[in-house]
Amino acid sequence: MTNKINITLSTTRKEKPNPSSLEFGRVFTDHMFVMDYSETKGWYDPRIVPYEPISLYPSTMVFHYGQTVFEGLKAYRTKEDKIFLFRPDKNFQRLNLSNDRLCIPHIDEEFAAEALKQLISIEKDWIPSAPGTSLYIRPFIIPTEYYLGVAPSKYYRFMIILSPVGSYYKEGIKPVKIYVEDNYVRAVKGGTGTAKTGANYAASLKAQENAEKNGYSQVLWLDGLEKKYIEEVGSMNIFFKINGEVVTPALNGSILEGVTRNSIIHLLKHWDIPVSEKRISMEEVYQAYKDGFLEEAFGTGTAAVISPIGEFFYNDEKMVLNNGETGELSKKLYDTLTGIQTGKHEDLFNWIVEVN
Amino acid sequence: MTNKINITLSTTRKEKPNPSSLEFGRVFTDHMFVMDYSETKGWYDPRIVPYEPISLYPSTMVFHYGQTVFEGLKAYRTKEDKIFLFRPDKNFQRLNLSNDRLCIPHIDEEFAAEALKQLISIEKDWIPSAPGTSLYIRPFIIPTEYYLGVAPSKYYRFMIILSPVGSYYKEGIKPVKIYVEDNYVRAVKGGTGTAKTGANYAASLKAQENAEKNGYSQVLWLDGLEKKYIEEVGSMNIFFKINGEVVTPALNGSILEGVTRNSIIHLLKHWDIPVSEKRISMEEVYQAYKDGFLEEAFGTGTAAVISPIGEFFYNDEKMVLNNGETGELSKKLYDTLTGIQTGKHEDLFNWIVEVN
Ligand SMILES: Cc1ncc(COP(=O)(O)O)c(C=O)c1O
Ligand SMILES: Cc1ncc(COP(=O)(O)O)c(C=O)c1O
Repeated sequence: MTNKINITLSTTRKEKPNPSSLEFGRVFTDHMFVMDYSETKGWYDPRIVPYEPISLYPSTMVFHYGQTVFEGLKAYRTKEDKIFLFRPDKNFQRLNLSNDRLCIPHIDEEFAAEALKQLISIEKDWIPSAPGTSLYIRPFIIPTEYYLGVAPSKYYRFMIILSPVGSYYKEGIKPVKIYVEDNYVRAVKGGTGTAKTGANYAASLKAQENAEKNGYSQVLWLDGLEKKYIEEVGSMNIFFKINGEVVTPALNGSILEGVTRNSIIHLLKHWDIPVSEKRISMEEVYQAYKDGFLEEAFGTGTAAVISPIGEFFYNDEKMVLNNGETGELSKKLYDTLTGIQTGKHEDLFNWIVEVN
Repeated sequence: MTNKINITLSTTRKEKPNPSSLEFGRVFTDHMFVMDYSETKGWYDPRIVPYEPISLYPSTMVFHYGQTVFEGLKAYRTKEDKIFLFRPDKNFQRLNLSNDRLCIPHIDEEFAAEALKQLISIEKDWIPSAPGTSLYIRPFIIPTEYYLGVAPSKYYRFMIILSPVGSYYKEGIKPVKIYVEDNYVRAVKGGTGTAKTGANYAASLKAQENAEKNGYSQVLWLDGLEKKYIEEVGSMNIFFKINGEVVTPALNGSILEGVTRNSIIHLLKHWDIPVSEKRISMEEVYQAYKDGFLEEAFGTGTAAVISPIGEFFYNDEKMVLNNGETGELSKKLYDTLTGIQTGKHEDLFNWIVEVN
């Protein structure tokens, strides 16, 4: 592969959306990064081109067998007008882990990070500056062979698209209500749960719909074998603070390892707050709740960074935490992590990559 | 929805492929059926149009979250030049079951069958007549909303595309070698295994690749919980003949119910051959093999109809069945079912739908 990225700028520019009415994932910037793969050429023709539709025959594999992977990260504008990426290397590393599981050829992680930086620097005017806003980055790979056989595709397209997004919390950080799912299963060991692939999200829609009907915003997944052990929430990992100690489910072969999860563990250790990754059952959490030891619970993910949990619905019972309010640790983690991401807090662990 | 199908014929016609060199799923006919869905209009604008690429923004949900469903069936040309479909109602019924699981709105099954008949009658010259050849039919639904949120799409496209396919068995029906998979998992109860959705096939690629590396053509999936009980093979259901009795795994919430499986059970009952659907472990099958009671094993599916199994690789051991040759019952089922499909055998159960 040649490392030279061909750039074709758009002859028109779209109007930037009003920063106060930004929705998640609906508006896209003027350009995107694209490269293609074939068995003979490897990844080839890396290019930045105008954001526009792609044209595919109805027999293209992506429409049939779900062999897709994706990532999600953000670019932030600091008060000093610097552009920061948060641990982008982790996302491209995870993309390759997903590729392994889905039989998709590896990308060159460093080159992808470089391509992202070039794209961001062309689109930097799209990065909003209001508190809580950012530019959501979606790298993804689709199979592009025209073939109906069940087999790994021989051709792929890698793309990065960008979408300015609003603050996750319109009125300040606010706890969510979570439905503990004991019927549907998201993933099981030996399946695709550790990969960021469409399959896991398709499998989750039905339970999500059910949770929302019952007034809950997201689903807490239990393990697929015994439906006892806690896995993760919708598109977040989960942490509990029980009697002064923080616990999160250990990586067990069916949980996605979040970049935020990893960062939170680093921060907690840095602060000398006891944190452990282990197998933890919903029954244990319930018992801690009954005994008055369940101090906080929160989800972690790129979208909301920290999502304090105000209520679980479990076994036909409502478990209300902290009077439904944001816990102290959740708030401190949120402030610190968003502070690092936006340059307000010292970059303790060298997580920030600046785009020039 | 208006039931009137708008027809736009192609101004050109592609050359038909040589019937002796037909591959599966590579060549498509001149036209396709398309209809769209929106929440306000329901399914609308049903149309038969030239087979051509579709144009979608990179943010289209199908590229990200795997919310897809599909079907597979065939049209056959009889010696008298009649065009037969085999139980198409079953496929559209199953498509709606898949839709339920994936939060996709139902299609009108009768209308879809009618649309298929109109499409086939326009494309009838594409149906090959050589023994074993047919026209493969691929109905499928993709989410078409431009949105990166994890939620059911608000817009969909339903399409039917057609591909002339060669004989599955170039040199007569021939047994396959099957690798019993005890590491990767295809599906688990509460997951998407009973639906025909991309996710299940994406999840299967890695194990399939591994089987092929070891010289086996397909994977036998065990249950995702204990990895003990038999589920199905690649894209086929599975049957065993043990000491005069036929058994197939019962539908357990993670197996896809094949139309061929259902038809085989009907035929066996009609012939007064004992057949049962029950939970069956690989260990039981192995024991029957050791005791000399495992008489035959075969896969069933639209592609090959009956695929006799000549060898299993299980627990580091090769289990060779029937000297690797096609069993008597497998052969009889194959001849009868393909006979019904191509008008050579009486249509015992009213399975055939003729296209005029
Ligand atoms: C299933 C799932 N789990 C966890 C996460 C959290 O990962 P990260 O912190 O990298 O955003 C995400 C979101 O990306 C996810 O989709
Ligand atoms: C996973 C799976 N199981 C079983 C089958 C067999 O189903 P049918 O007999 O309807 O073709 C198929 C193929 O369609 C399949 O994809």
